[in-house]
Amino acid sequence: MTLYINLAELLGTRIKQGFYRPGDRLPSVRALSVEHGVSLSTVQQAYRFLEDHGLASPRPKSGYFVPMERELPALPGMGKPAQRPVEISQWEQVLELVRSVPQKDVIQLGRGMPDITTPTIKPLLRSLAQISRRLDLPGLYYDNVYGVLALREQIARLLLDSGCQLSAEDLVITTGCHEALSCSIRAVCEPGDIVAVDSPSFHGAMQTLKGLGMKALEIPTDPLTGISLEALELALEQWPIKAIQITPSCNNPLGYIMPESRKRALMTLAQRFDVAIIEDDVYGELAYTYPRPRTVKSFDDEGRVLLCSSFSKTLAPGLRVGWVAPGRYLERVLHMKYISTGSTAPQPQLAVADFLENGHFEPHLRKMRMQYQRNRDLMLGWVSRYFPEGTRASRPQGSFLLWLELPEGFDSLRLNRVLLEQGVQIAVGSIFSASGKYRHCLRMNYAAKPTLQIEEAVRKVGVTASKLLAETVEHGAH
Amino acid sequence: MTLYINLAELLGTRIKQGFYRPGDRLPSVRALSVEHGVSLSTVQQAYRFLEDHGLASPRPKSGYFVPMERELPALPGMGKPAQRPVEISQWEQVLELVRSVPQKDVIQLGRGMPDITTPTIKPLLRSLAQISRRLDLPGLYYDNVYGVLALREQIARLLLDSGCQLSAEDLVITTGCHEALSCSIRAVCEPGDIVAVDSPSFHGAMQTLKGLGMKALEIPTDPLTGISLEALELALEQWPIKAIQITPSCNNPLGYIMPESRKRALMTLAQRFDVAIIEDDVYGELAYTYPRPRTVKSFDDEGRVLLCSSFSKTLAPGLRVGWVAPGRYLERVLHMKYISTGSTAPQPQLAVADFLENGHFEPHLRKMRMQYQRNRDLMLGWVSRYFPEGTRASRPQGSFLLWLELPEGFDSLRLNRVLLEQGVQIAVGSIFSASGKYRHCLRMNYAAKPTLQIEEAVRKVGVTASKLLAETVEHGAH
Repeated sequence: MTLYINLAELLGTRIKQGFYRPGDRLPSVRALSVEHGVSLSTVQQAYRFLEDHGLASPRPKSGYFVPMERELPALPGMGKPAQRPVEISQWEQVLELVRSVPQKDVIQLGRGMPDITTPTIKPLLRSLAQISRRLDLPGLYYDNVYGVLALREQIARLLLDSGCQLSAEDLVITTGCHEALSCSIRAVCEPGDIVAVDSPSFHGAMQTLKGLGMKALEIPTDPLTGISLEALELALEQWPIKAIQITPSCNNPLGYIMPESRKRALMTLAQRFDVAIIEDDVYGELAYTYPRPRTVKSFDDEGRVLLCSSFSKTLAPGLRVGWVAPGRYLERVLHMKYISTGSTAPQPQLAVADFLENGHFEPHLRKMRMQYQRNRDLMLGWVSRYFPEGTRASRPQGSFLLWLELPEGFDSLRLNRVLLEQGVQIAVGSIFSASGKYRHCLRMNYAAKPTLQIEEAVRKVGVTASKLLAETVEHGAH
Repeated sequence: MTLYINLAELLGTRIKQGFYRPGDRLPSVRALSVEHGVSLSTVQQAYRFLEDHGLASPRPKSGYFVPMERELPALPGMGKPAQRPVEISQWEQVLELVRSVPQKDVIQLGRGMPDITTPTIKPLLRSLAQISRRLDLPGLYYDNVYGVLALREQIARLLLDSGCQLSAEDLVITTGCHEALSCSIRAVCEPGDIVAVDSPSFHGAMQTLKGLGMKALEIPTDPLTGISLEALELALEQWPIKAIQITPSCNNPLGYIMPESRKRALMTLAQRFDVAIIEDDVYGELAYTYPRPRTVKSFDDEGRVLLCSSFSKTLAPGLRVGWVAPGRYLERVLHMKYISTGSTAPQPQLAVADFLENGHFEPHLRKMRMQYQRNRDLMLGWVSRYFPEGTRASRPQGSFLLWLELPEGFDSLRLNRVLLEQGVQIAVGSIFSASGKYRHCLRMNYAAKPTLQIEEAVRKVGVTASKLLAETVEHGAH
C-alpha cells in the first residue's frame, strides 16, 4: 500500500470519529510530514485524496480545514460478506428490476440509465438515421465476428487515455458490456469454479456467474479505496480462485476510484497467484477528474486482464455496443462471442464510430462529467435533508449512482414495494450481494437533469424509509 | 410413418435406379392404389411429394411422367455419422467463415445471407431512420428483458401460420436466432450432456454445444424427409440424451421440409423419452409452398419445444432481431438471456414491429419465396452444367442454400482455399458435422438476383472442383 493512502485513511478516520470537527484547522503539511516521517508531497497527496472525498477543504495560504458545510452523511461501513464461496441467489429481485420498462408515471431511480436527453448526443442520432438511408445498406449485413474495424480503431485510440496501448486487433465488439463480461467469464472459468468479486458488486456480473454455475467469493470492499487487498490475498491463499471480477474505476454501486497504487498491487497479486482479472470499466470514462483514471489492464504486461466496457453509460444503453480487450484469452472470447450472438449489429457500431471519428465524444463526456458531479452534490444534499438520521452515503468519484446504507434491519425490498405505489423505483441493496446481504442498503440514480419531480421522488424515498424504520424500531421494541 | 411418404420413397428409389427413365409414364393413380392397397388420395399425395422434389411431373389428363428435363444431379446420400456422442471440433473452419467480411472483389457463396437489395424491404429502412429522429428517443433506452411488447404481439400473430397458438407473454426477443439457440441450449442442458442433432447440421448450433461443453450425437438424415426417426429412436434408447436440436423446416444445409407426419412422430418420441426439442425455424417462413409448413412446436401441448427463430433470413441479419418461444423453460431462458446480453437493442425491434404492423411482411415474403425458388432451379441447372460428373445436389423446398456432395475423398477445404484466390467463397462441408465429416461436401448460397458474375462464380467452383477431383484420382492411381 502506498504511504499517502495510509495517511489519508488515518486522517479520515480521525475526522469521522469527531477528533477534528467542522471548521477545525487540520494539521499542517509540514507537521504531518515530520510526525509520520513522510515527504511533503506524500502529505499533499493525502490531503488531495481527502479533498476529493469531501473530508478536507483547502483555504489559500491557511492550510486544510474540515469543511464547515459538512452536513454530509457518514460513509457506509465496509461490508462483511461471507468468507467462503457461495452459490448466487437474488435472481427474483434482479428480474423484477430488469423486466421494468420506462413508464410515464414512475420515476426510475433504480436502473443504471445515463441522461440521454443532452444535445451533445444529437450527432449520433443523425448518424443512425443516415446509415439507414445509405444505398449500400451497411447496417443490414452480417458483421464479422470481431466487429466493425473503424469502431475498433476508435476504441483503441480511446483506450490510450486509460493507459492501455492496444490495437484494433486486440478488441472484440460485443452486444453491450453485458456480453463482454459474460464472454470473459466463460472464456476463463468453468462451472464449479470460484470467482472473487468486490462486495457490493454489479448484479449483472454476479447473475452471469450464477447462470454459468460458478461460485462467488465476496471480498470486503472499502467505500473509498475499493476491494480489500489484504482480504483478497487471504482468500487467494485459502481458495482455488480462478478469476477476480471487479469494477475498480467509478465502481458500481459504491462510486469509488481505486487508487493507482492499489490497482498496481492488485495486478501483482493476480500474477503471484496466477489468476485472471475481469475488469469492468463501463463507468471509467465518467470519472469527475481529468485525465480519467488508469485501468488495471494498463499495468498488465502478460495479457492476464480482460477489460470489458461499452458505450451504454457514456452514450446510450439502447445501442448495445460494448467491447472486450481479452488479452491472452482472445481466441476463447471469440468463440464465446460467436456462440452467444453470432455477431453484433453493424448499424449502431458505424454510428458510434462516426461520432468518435468526428470528435463529438470528448466534449460530450466533459459535459456529462460536470452534470453528474453537480447532480451528486445535489443528491447528497437531498439525502441529508430527507433521509432518516443514521443514513450513510457513498462519495461517488464518477458515474451517476449513489449507494445508501440504512441502519441494520431496515428492509429495502419492502421500501421498494411501498414506493412503487407512489411512482418511484429504486434498486434494492440485496441484488448487489451474491447471498442477499445489503438488504438494508439501496442504490439511486442521479443522472437526469435535476427537476422538482426528482427531488420530490427522492424526498418520498427518504420519508418512506423513515416511516418504515420507525415501524421496525417500534416492532423491535414490542 | 404415413403411407404416402412410404409410397413416394418407393417410387423415388425406382426412378433414381433407372427403373423408370426420363419421359416414361409412371403408373396411374388407380393402379398404384390397387397395387399397394392404399386410397387414391394417398397416391395423389405421394405424387405431389415427388413433384415437389422434381422426380415426377404431371401432364393434364395423361397422368404422371418422369421429367424429360431431368438432367438434375442425383440426391446426396444419407450421411453415416458416428453412432456415438462426440466432442465437437471444426471451430477453426467456422472462424474462417465468420471472420470474413463482404468484399467487393469476392463473391460470397458461403454465408447464409439473404437478398437485402429488394425494394420490398424499403419501408423497414424508413422506419429505422424515423425512429432515430423521434424526440422521445425510444431507441436509446434499456429495453426490458422480454423485448418490445409491440414486436412480441406481431410475432405471436405470425406464428399462427405455423400452427402455434402463443401470446406475447410466451415470447422472449433475442439478439438474432443465434442467441435464441444459445439461451435454449443453456436452459435445457448442462456441460457434459448429450444433444442429438440432425446431420449435416447448422454449424452455429453445434459450436454452441461445443462452447458449452456438451456432446453431439449426429443422427443420419434423409435429404428429402429429414432426421431418421428410426436412428433417433435407437439413439434415445441407448444414450441419456437431454435434448434434440433440429431444423425441420427448410433445413440448413439440406433444404428439406420434414413432412408433417414425421414432425408429429418426432414429438411423440420426445414425449416418450422425456427430452426437450430445440427447433430452429429460422428459414421456415421461406418455404416455397404456401401456407408455410407447421412447426414441431405446433404439435406440442406440454411446453417441451423451444422454438427459435429470427428476421435474419426473412429481412436482414444485421438487425440482430430474433426470438424464442421457450415453453416450460421460460424462466430459465429469461435468466440466460439476461446474462448473455442484458437486453436487446430496441431500435431494430421497433422498426420490425412497424414493418409487420403495416402489412409489409407478407408481400415481401411472397416476393422472396418466388425469387429464391427461381434461383434454386437456375442454380441446379448451373451445377448440372459446370460440376464434375457424380456431383449430387439437394432439392431445397425453401430458403436459399444448396448442398452439394462430391465423390468421397474430395477435399472442399482445399477447394475453398484455391477459390479464394479467384475471388469466390463457399462454405466447406466439414463445419456441418461435429466430427469433421462431409469434407467432400459444400454449401452454396443462391439468394442474390442472378447475374453473369454469379454464374461465372459458380462455374469457377465447378471447374476448380473438377480439376481438384482429377488430381485426387490421378494421385490415387499412383
